[in-house]
Amino acid sequence: MRILGIDPGLRRTGFGVIDVDGPRLLYVASGTIVVPSHLSLAARLKTILDHIREVAAEHRPDIAAMEKVFLNTNPTSTLLLGQARGAALCGLADSGLEVHEYTALQIKKAVVGSGRAAKEQVQHMVQRLLALNGLPAPDSADALACAICHAHLQPVALALSRNKLLQGTGRMRNGRLLG
Amino acid sequence: MRILGIDPGLRRTGFGVIDVDGPRLLYVASGTIVVPSHLSLAARLKTILDHIREVAAEHRPDIAAMEKVFLNTNPTSTLLLGQARGAALCGLADSGLEVHEYTALQIKKAVVGSGRAAKEQVQHMVQRLLALNGLPAPDSADALACAICHAHLQPVALALSRNKLLQGTGRMRNGRLLG
Repeated sequence: MRILGIDPGLRRTGFGVIDVDGPRLLYVASGTIVVPSHLSLAARLKTILDHIREVAAEHRPDIAAMEKVFLNTNPTSTLLLGQARGAALCGLADSGLEVHEYTALQIKKAVVGSGRAAKEQVQHMVQRLLALNGLPAPDSADALACAICHAHLQPVALALSRNKLLQGTGRMRNGRLLG
Repeated sequence: MRILGIDPGLRRTGFGVIDVDGPRLLYVASGTIVVPSHLSLAARLKTILDHIREVAAEHRPDIAAMEKVFLNTNPTSTLLLGQARGAALCGLADSGLEVHEYTALQIKKAVVGSGRAAKEQVQHMVQRLLALNGLPAPDSADALACAICHAHLQPVALALSRNKLLQGTGRMRNGRLLG
């Protein structure tokens, strides 16, 4: 299973792609979509939309994962983040991807083992878990951490789905349980 | 010139299309995109994205107009509206449309003549200005009001552009001034 993790933002949107092979996690790609700030809002959102579609077309993930949003106390920031997030979700949905959302707590717990981990600890653990040569950039690390979180929590969901299937109470499509 | 006005929202997104023929405003179409609330967030945003692209493909507007956002005191509402707005802006930008944004004050002043107009007054004036047989639904009325606002404020911008062109300081593309 190939997972695309996204860390959305209006100025910088991080992405990270990993493969899950049984218990092994394999790094595929990661990077940051840097959005030119001189563009109009619509053009900036279109930059995010286009690049997410490009990443999805190039790496053909099976599923996407995104962090559930942290509500900023500044309403203007919340609105800007919301719009960037909307563009990123559109890019994923437009590429036919189902999106799973995880809280920052779930992601940190899955990657570092503690919900109170600092940003640097997340970067270090992402580097270790994916056997990277160097420390990933913050946006890439957050996107990869989100993908890793989905990889860790997915087996539980899958096992439940298989159980349901054996009992004849569920239907699968693209490896996901329906209904 | 054909203008597409949009009033975005995660549950209901209004759209309105008008033609501007000199001083005359002609109603073309309007409606509300009703987003099924049982869908995932990504699927709801994709509904908005898809329908906006459909409306743009069907009516082929030259330009789009949207209300600048009202910052809700509830951060969760602000985030949801931001995401819906991001999806609507992506749909417009994906259709090659430039988007102009106007404050609620500008829109009410352009349509009713007063920035303190009530929602019902906006509906009534939209009905009168476009010679509609019935009162437009609230979402459609807001979207049409936004398009009317652009029609009213556009001549000023155009005159300025033409002046610049005559002075050789501007370039035009699709009727818009560049640089």
